[in-house]
Amino acid sequence: MTTAPDTAEIERRKDAARAWFETLRDRICKAFEDLEDALTGEGAAKVAGIAAGRFERTAWKRPGNDDAEGGGGVMSVMRGRVFEKVGVNVSTVHGAFSPEFAKQIPGSDTSGGQFWASGISLVAHMRSPHVPAVHMNTRHIVTGKGWFGGGADLTPMFPDSAPAQEDGRHLHAALKAACDAADPEYYPRFKKWCDEYFFLPHRGEPRGLGGIFYDYLDSGDWEADFAFTRGVGEAFLRAYPEIVARRMNGGWSDEDRRHQLIRRGRYAEFNLLYDRGTQFGLKTGGNTEAILMSLPPEVIWP
Amino acid sequence: MTTAPDTAEIERRKDAARAWFETLRDRICKAFEDLEDALTGEGAAKVAGIAAGRFERTAWKRPGNDDAEGGGGVMSVMRGRVFEKVGVNVSTVHGAFSPEFAKQIPGSDTSGGQFWASGISLVAHMRSPHVPAVHMNTRHIVTGKGWFGGGADLTPMFPDSAPAQEDGRHLHAALKAACDAADPEYYPRFKKWCDEYFFLPHRGEPRGLGGIFYDYLDSGDWEADFAFTRGVGEAFLRAYPEIVARRMNGGWSDEDRRHQLIRRGRYAEFNLLYDRGTQFGLKTGGNTEAILMSLPPEVIWP
Repeated sequence: MTTAPDTAEIERRKDAARAWFETLRDRICKAFEDLEDALTGEGAAKVAGIAAGRFERTAWKRPGNDDAEGGGGVMSVMRGRVFEKVGVNVSTVHGAFSPEFAKQIPGSDTSGGQFWASGISLVAHMRSPHVPAVHMNTRHIVTGKGWFGGGADLTPMFPDSAPAQEDGRHLHAALKAACDAADPEYYPRFKKWCDEYFFLPHRGEPRGLGGIFYDYLDSGDWEADFAFTRGVGEAFLRAYPEIVARRMNGGWSDEDRRHQLIRRGRYAEFNLLYDRGTQFGLKTGGNTEAILMSLPPEVIWP
Repeated sequence: MTTAPDTAEIERRKDAARAWFETLRDRICKAFEDLEDALTGEGAAKVAGIAAGRFERTAWKRPGNDDAEGGGGVMSVMRGRVFEKVGVNVSTVHGAFSPEFAKQIPGSDTSGGQFWASGISLVAHMRSPHVPAVHMNTRHIVTGKGWFGGGADLTPMFPDSAPAQEDGRHLHAALKAACDAADPEYYPRFKKWCDEYFFLPHRGEPRGLGGIFYDYLDSGDWEADFAFTRGVGEAFLRAYPEIVARRMNGGWSDEDRRHQLIRRGRYAEFNLLYDRGTQFGLKTGGNTEAILMSLPPEVIWP
C-alpha cells in the first residue's frame, strides 16, 4: 500500500480529487441557495427588499500564464439575504515554486520545485448576527509527495451565548464523526491544531469556536486519506446548513449588528495578519479577488 | 561633530525629542479640534446631529511591565464630524529586543539589545470622501546608535481627480520645503522611498499620492537631523489642516461614500499585510489598541 504510485496513478488521483472538489462546490452552492429561498419570519422581515441570492461564477487564470498553462480557478460568489457574502473558490493550479519557497514545501526537492494543487475554499459572512460565519477548505497537493489538508471552523458573533455554544457542538460533532470514521486519533489532534491556528495573539483570543484543521496528511493509504477529506466535506455540507436553518429566521437589533461588524474586524485582522493561505496566495501571485473574497463585506473598527 | 555623544548628551537628546513629539501632538490636536468647530455648508449638513469632536486621551503601559518600567504611551482619539476617526499616539518605550529581532536593528550589537524609542504616529480617516485620509509619523530611536525616521503621506479617495491632485501637490510642496531646508537630496530620495513603501503589490497600486518616508537618518549632525524631523512635523501641521479646510465644507453622494468605504479596504489591507510598524508592534507585544487605531472606522469589501 505504501508502494510509490506510478505516473498514471498520480494523474488518476489528481483527476479524482479535482472532480470531488468541484462536485462538493456544486452541492454546497445548491444547499446555500435553498437556504436563501427558505428564509422566513423576522429574519426575512429584516432583509425585506433583498432578493434571494444566487451564486455567480467567474473563471480566472493564474496571472502571467497563457490559456490553460498554470491552471486557474472558478470563484463562486453569492450576495444574498441570508448569506451577506459567501465565496466558494475551486482552483487547480500547477507550476514551479520559487527556490526560496520550495524549501518550505515537502517533496519539492524531488519534484524540482514542481507542484500541482487543487482545492475548495469557502468563507461565509451572514446577514444575521445570530448566524455564525464559517470557513471550510480542503485541498490535495502533489509535489514529489502527495497529501491532503484542510478543515472547517465556526465563528459565531456571540461565541459565549447558549445558541452559539449549541452551534459549535453541532459542527464539532459532525467533524468528529468524519474524523472517527477514519482514525480515532484524528479529532483530538486536528481540533487542537485548529485551536492553535485560528488564534489572534495580539488580541489574546480565538477566532471563534474552532473546528478541525489538518495538513500534510499522507497516511500511506491515499484512498483512505481521500475518503477522509471527502468525509470532512460531507460533514460540513450536512451540519452548517442545519445550523443556518435553525438561526436564520430570527430577528436582531441594531446593537447586535454593530457587535457583528466589530467582530468581523477580528476576522479581517486574522486573515490579513496571520492566515497562511492569504499570505501565501498574495505573495505568490495568486488571484487577489479570489483570495480576498474571504474578507467580510462590511466591517467597523470603532 | 561626529564625536560620539556622552551619556548625559544622549539623555538630553532623548528628552528633547520626546518633548517635541508631545508638543507637536498637542498642537495637532488643537488644529484638528478647530477644524471640527469650523465646519459649515453642505459638509455640516451631511453630519447634522454629530457634535464637533474633541480628543480623548488614554494612557497605556507596555504589557508585562510594572509601573513606568518599559515605558508606554498616550493614545489620543477623536471621533468627530470632520474627522470620522483620528488617532494620535505618542509613545516612549525602552527595553531589550529579542535576540532574533536585535539582528535586524542597527546598533543593537553595541547596546546589548537595549533600545529606547519615542515617536508620534497619526492616522486620520475623514467623514467626507472628498477629504483625503492622512498618515504622519516621526520617531527617534536609540540603541548603540541613534537615528530619526518617519514621514507623511496622503490618501485621497479619488486620487486621479483634479482636487485630489491639487491636495497632493500641496502636501508634497510643504514636505519638499522641509526637506530642502535640510538637504536638497532629501526630497527626491524620501519621496521615492515613500512611493516604494506605500505600495500594494497584490493590487498593483499605490496606497495614495505619497509624500515622504525616511529611516535610519543619522547624518552625523544630531541637531540638524532633529531640526529636519521637527520641520517635517511643522510642514504636516501647516499643510494638512489647509487641505482639510479647503475640502470639508462640500457635500457628497451615497455613491461617493461607498467608493470611500471600498478604498478604505485597501488601507486596511496595507496596514495589516505590509506595514512594518503594525507587524512590528503586534509581534513584539505592543499596545494592540494603539497600533490598530490606524484602521478605518468603517470599511466594505463588496
